[in-house]
Order: sequence, then C-alpha cells, then structure tokens
Amino acid sequence: MAASKSKKTAATSHQDRVKAVFDDIKASRNVPDVNNFWKHLARDPALLERTWAGVKEVMAPGALDPLVKEMIYVAVSVTNGCGYCIASHSASARKAGMTEAMFGELMAVVGMANETNRLANGYRVPIDEMFEKADPGPAKLP
Amino acid sequence: MAASKSKKTAATSHQDRVKAVFDDIKASRNVPDVNNFWKHLARDPALLERTWAGVKEVMAPGALDPLVKEMIYVAVSVTNGCGYCIASHSASARKAGMTEAMFGELMAVVGMANETNRLANGYRVPIDEMFEKADPGPAKLP
Amino acid sequence: MAASKSKKTAATSHQDRVKAVFDDIKASRNVPDVNNFWKHLARDPALLERTWAGVKEVMAPGALDPLVKEMIYVAVSVTNGCGYCIASHSASARKAGMTEAMFGELMAVVGMANETNRLANGYRVPIDEMFEKADPGPAKLP
Amino acid sequence: MAASKSKKTAATSHQDRVKAVFDDIKASRNVPDVNNFWKHLARDPALLERTWAGVKEVMAPGALDPLVKEMIYVAVSVTNGCGYCIASHSASARKAGMTEAMFGELMAVVGMANETNRLANGYRVPIDEMFEKADPGPAKLP
Amino acid sequence: MAASKSKKTAATSHQDRVKAVFDDIKASRNVPDVNNFWKHLARDPALLERTWAGVKEVMAPGALDPLVKEMIYVAVSVTNGCGYCIASHSASARKAGMTEAMFGELMAVVGMANETNRLANGYRVPIDEMFEKADPGPAKLP
Amino acid sequence: MAASKSKKTAATSHQDRVKAVFDDIKASRNVPDVNNFWKHLARDPALLERTWAGVKEVMAPGALDPLVKEMIYVAVSVTNGCGYCIASHSASARKAGMTEAMFGELMAVVGMANETNRLANGYRVPIDEMFEKADPGPAKLP
Repeated sequence: MAASKSKKTAATSHQDRVKAVFDDIKASRNVPDVNNFWKHLARDPALLERTWAGVKEVMAPGALDPLVKEMIYVAVSVTNGCGYCIASHSASARKAGMTEAMFGELMAVVGMANETNRLANGYRVPIDEMFEKADPGPAKLP
Repeated sequence: MAASKSKKTAATSHQDRVKAVFDDIKASRNVPDVNNFWKHLARDPALLERTWAGVKEVMAPGALDPLVKEMIYVAVSVTNGCGYCIASHSASARKAGMTEAMFGELMAVVGMANETNRLANGYRVPIDEMFEKADPGPAKLP
Repeated sequence: MAASKSKKTAATSHQDRVKAVFDDIKASRNVPDVNNFWKHLARDPALLERTWAGVKEVMAPGALDPLVKEMIYVAVSVTNGCGYCIASHSASARKAGMTEAMFGELMAVVGMANETNRLANGYRVPIDEMFEKADPGPAKLP
Repeated sequence: MAASKSKKTAATSHQDRVKAVFDDIKASRNVPDVNNFWKHLARDPALLERTWAGVKEVMAPGALDPLVKEMIYVAVSVTNGCGYCIASHSASARKAGMTEAMFGELMAVVGMANETNRLANGYRVPIDEMFEKADPGPAKLP
Repeated sequence: MAASKSKKTAATSHQDRVKAVFDDIKASRNVPDVNNFWKHLARDPALLERTWAGVKEVMAPGALDPLVKEMIYVAVSVTNGCGYCIASHSASARKAGMTEAMFGELMAVVGMANETNRLANGYRVPIDEMFEKADPGPAKLP
Repeated sequence: MAASKSKKTAATSHQDRVKAVFDDIKASRNVPDVNNFWKHLARDPALLERTWAGVKEVMAPGALDPLVKEMIYVAVSVTNGCGYCIASHSASARKAGMTEAMFGELMAVVGMANETNRLANGYRVPIDEMFEKADPGPAKLP
C-alpha cells in the first residue's frame, strides 16, 4: 500500500511539476497553450524544468535584444538542419519583428558562413597572428 | 613558343586577378594586408573572385547591421567548429562593436540552440500547425 | 544469348546474396521481416553485406553491453539529426531495456554535450596539459 | 565616485561569483584546480554558473551511471569533432573506469552510427510503421 | 501617390528580376519550370540572383565533369542530412549519367568517410609530417 | 602461471594481428610505413582489421575510379571539418592525379553545396514531386 501511495504521489508530483512549468510558459509568453516541444519534454520533469529555466534566462533581453537572439537561434538551427527548431524559431523571430528583408539577409549570411567555413577547412588556412592576439583568453581575475 | 607565351600570359593573368581582389579587400576594409584566408584562396582566382564578391555583398549594411551579421557568422562558425572562422569573425565582431557581455550572450544562445536542437530531434517533436501556417512558403508573384 | 544468360545469373546472384543477408538478420534478431533500412541497402549487395557484417560484429555484447551500445547509437543519431536512425535505434534501445528515465537522462547528456561542445569552440579553450598526458597515443607494440 | 565604487563592486561581484563556482567544482571533483574550460567561461559569470549547475545535475548518478554518461559525452564530442571536449571527457571516462577495450567498442559504435546515419540519409529510407508506433509521443498527463 | 507608385515599381522590379533568373534557369537546363528551391529563394531577388549565378558557374564543366560535380554535391548533402538537396541532386546526378552501381559506391565512400572521420577524431590522431609537407599552402605569387 | 602465459599469448596475438594488417597496407599501397591513423587504431586489433578491410574494399576501382573516390572522401572530410582526414585524403587525391584546378573546383562545389543545403533548410523547401518519383526506393527483388 505504501508503494502504491508513493507511486501515486510521484505521479502527482510529475503532473504538478509539469503544470507549474506550463503555467509559467503561458504567462511569460502570453499564449493559451504551450507548443509541442514542451509537451514532449514533459515526459521528464527535471529536463523540462531545467530547459525552460535556461531558455527563459538566455532569451531574455540583455546586451542583445530578443530579435537578435531569435535570429541567432534560427542561424544555428538552419546550420544543424533541425526542422522543428527552424519552424518554431523563425515564427518567434517574425513575432519579434523580423521582416522578410531581414530573413533574406539572415539566410544569406548563414549560407555564406557555411560555405566559407568549408573553404577555410579545405584550404587548411592557419590562423593569422593578429586573430590569436585579439582573443581575450581565460578570465582575468585579480 | 606560342605555348610558352600563352602560359606566361595565363600566369600574369592569375597574378593580376589576385592583385585586383587583394587591392579591393585592402581598400574596402582599410587594412595594410589581407588575412590568410584570401592568400590561400588565391590559388584559384575564380574561387577568390566569387567568394570575395559574395562576402562583400552579403556583409554590407542592409536590413541587418554589420555587427549583427558578424555575430551570426560567429554563431554558424562555432556550431560547425571551424577554428579559423571562429577566430577571424570573433575579431571582426569585436572590431564592429561586440562587447564581452554581448559575446557572452551570443555564446549562451548558440549553446542553448545546439542543446534544444538535439532535444527536438531526440523527442521527435512534430511541428505545430501554427508554425506551419506562419511559414511564407514560395514567393507570391503576380 | 551468352549475355542474356550471364545477365540472368547476375540477377539471380544479386537476389541470392540479398536473401542470405535477410535470412541472417531475421534469425539473429528473431524477427519475421527486416526493416526498411536493409530493404533499401539491398539495391547494392556488396554494401548490404558489408554493412550487416559490421553492424552485427560491432553491436554484439563485448566490453560494453548491448543496451549501452544502443544508447550510444541514439546519441550519435540525435546529434546528426538522422530521423530514421533516431526512430529505429530508440526502438532497439527500448527493446534492450531502456526505460523512460534512462531515455530522459540520455537526452539530457546529449543536449548538454552539444551545448558545451560549442562553448568550448566559441571560447577557443586550449587543451589542458593533464588531458594531453592522459591520452594513450599510438599503439605500444613490442 | 559613485560610478567608480559601483564599478568596483561589480568587479568584486564578478570575482566572487567565479570563486564560488570554482570552489564548488574543486570540492565536487576533489581536484586542486579547475580545468581550462571553466577558466574561459569565467569571463561571463552567469554563463559559468548556469553551465556548471547544468553539468553537475546532468552528470550525477541517476538512471544511468556516471561512466555511461561520460561515454555518451565522448560519443557526441567525437561526432561533433570538438577537440577540447574529446580530450577532457575521454580523460573523465577513463577516470570513471573506461578500459581500453571499452574505448575501442565505443569508437566502433560511434563510427558505425556515423556511417549508417549517412546510408539512411542517402537511400532516403522511410521510417517503418513499427518504429512510429513504438514512439511514446508527448507526455500522457491526467 | 509617389509612394504608391514607387512601391509598385519595386514590386515590378522584384517580379522582373525573378522572371529573368527563372527564364535563364529554364533555358540553361532545358526544363519547362524551375524546381521549388528557386521558387522559395525568389522571396529575396538578390539572394536568388547571387545563388543562381554561383550554381551556374560552379557546376559548369571544367577540370571536373558535371557528373562528378553532382556526385560531390550529393556526398555533401548526405553528410549534412539535407533532405531536399539529397533528393534534388541525386535526381540531377542520375540525369547526368549516374548508374545504380555508381550510386552504391558513392554511398559506400560517403559512409566510410563519415566513419573514419570520427575514428580520427576519437583517437586524436596527429597529422603525419608527410601530409603537412604535401600541402601547397598559400598561393605562390611572383 | 597459466594466466601469465595466456596474457602473453594474447599480447602476441594482438601484435600479430596488427603486423598482418600493417604488412597488407604497406604492400597494397607500396609504402615503407603506415600513416598515423593506422598506428592509433592498432590499439584495438578488431577495429583495425575491420576498418582496413572496409577501406580497402570501398576505395578499390569499381564503377567509380579511385581519384573520384578520393575527392568524395575529401568533400565529406571538409564538410565534417576533420583536420586529419582533410590532410591525408587531399594528399591521396593529389597522388591519384588531382590537379590544383581540380582541387579548386572540388572546393567550389563543396562550398556551394554547404551553402545551398542551408538555404533549402532555412526556406523550408518541400521536395518536388518529380524528385520523389525519380527515387528508386527499396530494392526490387523478384
């Protein structure tokens, strides 16, 4: 009976933890429902909680504004070929103000970077000394 | 003799084509010398000319400003793990105004996107209908 | 006539080679039919034979047990974004005993590794001497 | 003066936050110093804190033991070609008990998965219905 | 009115630029319609023009014949897992003369390269001096 | 004593198996020594044997000639950013007859494919029906 009860408690807890995250997503984004990504992650409450906490913190306005962050997200997703992420973050970027002209330039840079990344690989180009010098290296702590 | 002469002309032509591109890079960027990437591409003048023309056009200010474009370039290069491109475009981004705080947020978004791209893959998340609807599809031409 | 006959023999041979591999897959895995992957590879009998021989040898129990091997297969497929491989090897891993809790942790590690791989790239972190020293290097042969 | 003081406080805070994370890494891993990865991330205290919290939680023993988790980390890092991560997590895996025989089998699976991922892509293999059925889909919540 | 007129002119110009590229694609490839890739890129005339100009120049017969070029295109697309590109360039390669036997060998090399790329990563193999010496390095210009 | 002897036998066997592969590589390629890749794989004789058998079979002349195969190997390695593989297979390709002009075109195609792969991803281009129809699908067996 103890086992059965503890199992029920665990199940409830799973459900409660998911509900808390879903509620926060809906409130933060002002949407009536969460998108499929969160519904699938909800199979693992710990992963759901950690991922949402991370996304919420990382995508908040800071030194970079949210539109730039969404476009960077699209750039990575397009480079990795993640169909779901391209669809969802392109939609988010448009919602945040990305125009068709901005999308076109974003794609142009992503395409060009993917091309020249391979040219640099193939021609085995050594890093210029000035680039090495420009690198900040590890944190300078007193 | 004709062969020898045409060979020499071709060699000169190769050299002239490279010089024209190098001069344009130096003038456009106001730098005394081109970086290693261009010196290696110079082995193939057609590739050098096409790549420089593309980079020059794509990276020019437009709907997106040059700093945003450089950060997108860094995001792609970091995702692909291209050591040369990370070093050179991080330097360009700093030159264009990227602060350490902006770099930290750029890396945070790139890291998060690379993580969630794999979660979406692994959980096999289907694309939400609202994202499909938000997609502009092919060009609408009259 | 000779040509026609040799063509028929080649066709038969192709069919026989495929049948031999399919029979071995069915027997080894105790399944009534092979999955689509093998049916497509069957267009090239040499590729089919070599791939099956490799998979059979590599995935057999050894220093690592089959469940761990299947989870590593899933980790790679998720990182590469191969939809077919994610679906098939997740199914194999579940069959070999992967629970939902194990799947959640597998995804968490895969996501985290994909994130920190990019942070290490972007921050251009040099390899610590202790890691270099820990590397076994080439085989020590007498 | 206020500006100068607030600047100093911020600097101290940056330093304090880094020290707190470094101390926790050293204590958790029982090592005299942190490795280069953390020294570079320390340029951004928020990224450092979030990354360490994530790694600590994800790599802790759970449904999967730490050795399996380290080997999955290696599998991802090898697939992505992250030199730093391959060196550091191979060392961690050895420390956690990975033998040379286990490493050889790990590499064999990683190599095979990377090969068959591309065969599945190239032959455009459709997902078998049984694999679709085996997928748990979104969380089943009451 | 001026705004309305200039808007109409811009629209016409967009349409005209697309038509010019589409006409050139149809004529160059002797096809009645362009494929979806171009119809989507047509949302950004500058990207459309630059991409078509690049593809036309790069895929033309030169030191490598068109069939070899198409197979290299397939090899890259399969490695990146780009579903659209695999489908379209496999079709182009077949049109250019790729037989089923050639396709099988192409896939075998692509699979093998993706496997050994990871073995070289995982075993952290240092580059042999003879390979370093064989590299042409930057262009030798007089 | 039995243990000590069996250990010695195993060691000898390891050494013998490596020697047999190394001898075959030297004879097949007519080289005085094997390159570093094989010396590292030699830590695992089973992996060494299987990898060499695969490479030998796949890279042999067939429907595609060895030079084309080496260039496909380079295309994959450049796309994956495998430094060792780029260096070694570029050297092999040059040995097999790749001229600088061929290398330039190879790089141009690889760069272009990596660019357009991302454009197809980002614009979410659906596969044309004619490409679906052109796909051979699973093997047609009587």
